Amino acid sequence: MKKFINDPDNLVSELLEGYAAAYAKKIKLEGNNLVVRATPKAAGKVAIVTHGGSGHEPALSGFVGEGMIDISVPGEIFAAPGPPRVLDAIKRADLGAGVLFVVLNHSGDVMTANIVMEMAAKQGLNVKQILTHEDVAGGPKSEPENRRGLVGCVPLYKIAGAAAEEGRSLDEVLAVAEKFNDNMATLAVALTPASHPSTGEFIFELPEDEMEIGMGQHGEAGTGRMKLKSADETAEIMINMLLADIEAKAGDKLLVLLNGTGATTLMEMFIVFRKVAQVCAEKGIEVVRGGCDEYLTVQEMAGFQMFAAKMDDELIALWDAPADTPYLTVSGK
Amino acid sequence: MKKFINDPDNLVSELLEGYAAAYAKKIKLEGNNLVVRATPKAAGKVAIVTHGGSGHEPALSGFVGEGMIDISVPGEIFAAPGPPRVLDAIKRADLGAGVLFVVLNHSGDVMTANIVMEMAAKQGLNVKQILTHEDVAGGPKSEPENRRGLVGCVPLYKIAGAAAEEGRSLDEVLAVAEKFNDNMATLAVALTPASHPSTGEFIFELPEDEMEIGMGQHGEAGTGRMKLKSADETAEIMINMLLADIEAKAGDKLLVLLNGTGATTLMEMFIVFRKVAQVCAEKGIEVVRGGCDEYLTVQEMAGFQMFAAKMDDELIALWDAPADTPYLTVSGK
Repeated sequence: MKKFINDPDNLVSELLEGYAAAYAKKIKLEGNNLVVRATPKAAGKVAIVTHGGSGHEPALSGFVGEGMIDISVPGEIFAAPGPPRVLDAIKRADLGAGVLFVVLNHSGDVMTANIVMEMAAKQGLNVKQILTHEDVAGGPKSEPENRRGLVGCVPLYKIAGAAAEEGRSLDEVLAVAEKFNDNMATLAVALTPASHPSTGEFIFELPEDEMEIGMGQHGEAGTGRMKLKSADETAEIMINMLLADIEAKAGDKLLVLLNGTGATTLMEMFIVFRKVAQVCAEKGIEVVRGGCDEYLTVQEMAGFQMFAAKMDDELIALWDAPADTPYLTVSGK
Repeated sequence: MKKFINDPDNLVSELLEGYAAAYAKKIKLEGNNLVVRATPKAAGKVAIVTHGGSGHEPALSGFVGEGMIDISVPGEIFAAPGPPRVLDAIKRADLGAGVLFVVLNHSGDVMTANIVMEMAAKQGLNVKQILTHEDVAGGPKSEPENRRGLVGCVPLYKIAGAAAEEGRSLDEVLAVAEKFNDNMATLAVALTPASHPSTGEFIFELPEDEMEIGMGQHGEAGTGRMKLKSADETAEIMINMLLADIEAKAGDKLLVLLNGTGATTLMEMFIVFRKVAQVCAEKGIEVVRGGCDEYLTVQEMAGFQMFAAKMDDELIALWDAPADTPYLTVSGK
């Protein structure tokens, strides 16, 4: 493994210290390595809290700031944090209007979240949970428990965070976040494996001439290992699976994001995006907003996650609303 | 080579088409694949134009937009565009106050720029050129012709672009850009090679246990091939070379950027940034602004460029001024 690290046991504390040094105007560390906004949200507004393993930078903590997450609780590499830190985050974040707790569907994250929600109920905290589970490789929408939470959490933070900044109530923020959650889908493809930075071992293997569709974020097996395909062929297979899942039809408006997982270049993502836009246009579906970036990575894994969501005017306005975080800033103009 | 591409001959036209589809609110293509702002700058303000090879996404065209570049002229992969397209860009960009033409010191880019400047003079165009050459691996400041232009162009677009948006004259924009140019330095380190997307060939080779400091952006040899070092050791070697080059001393304020060149994770860059901040603090130098991101990549090459610039109040205000481009947005708050 060729990586710039020091002691593998200190990865997370060192990376958080560096992150806070680089973006001191926007975020800071508080308590036991909680990532919080440098300038807190106004009192009386709903707060957004999330948790999840490290090693996926910039996610999740890269999106702490105005208009997105109030407090992120990073775990160790690829591992959920324990319940006490998350409970502490929820208490610190609550500004009098309650907390929306965003959880990605991975067993460790869900286990922590279940305990947190039990403890929060006992302590009378005002917190509601939303679970993201938009990986279409896991199965149909009717089996949400089998669908992993992938990059969809990032635009969901944006939608929920913008609704919270507007001063909506906790029930209202939850409702619009659930609307977005019900209309989004993601599918991943991998070309090369990632190495675990603590052990130096590859987390899976792929032959030199193959790719795998449906990969999870930690090397979980996908649904289709196949010979390497062109950008256009790959784009077509993936966008059609997403459009079927969200039941997109002519006249619908989409947000499409391509999330690079590590070594895949923006050059490649732009070429794939071109074909996605063409396929949608042929079906009379309009890609009204887009993005190609590394939002949630899997170390140096070559590949990407393709995300699509059906948008209405309310969701588009929330996506366009101002945000000011280290890895997603929207001017609001 | 495992990359999502179609016909290698169409890489640049396809990637630009996808880029314009993904960021239609911010940029569009005009003329012969010129990347221009979707909403033009107000008349009477200085325009910023730049040119350079593709394959380095998001640079250079990722920074077209309010507060940065007005028109970018992308060449083929790792190759400068020809003079006619650049001259066309300069004519289109001029809003009555002239054009600042930002050129990176690479032989192809400089050859094109020299012809462009000759043609512009003959045609009576109001354009002034600034050459970036901040790679400390090329030699001392007294030999600028040997120093390549690396990621420093990106913050320079930000400084010059903000000055132009304020309504400063061409001479004034050039002067503040030159002040920044004189006080900035970059050094690159590579861990793994990049493959050329047109040929599939690696552009250089590196043994499994070595790294190379001073790499150029196209596989140009560096100054120091050495055994792989820890993040802290690497950070210390590199920041000390940069601080010596810009003659930073106690009391100085710095902008420090770490530019991932491809496969290197943000996790690693944060860990390196932590040590850079520590080294500076020990010397009484304050890192007042920072950033870790992929600004100018070299395909999937693992490694990064470390950038540092001495900042005064004027430069900090220009760095903090609003910008709205696909890959750098500043809210201005």
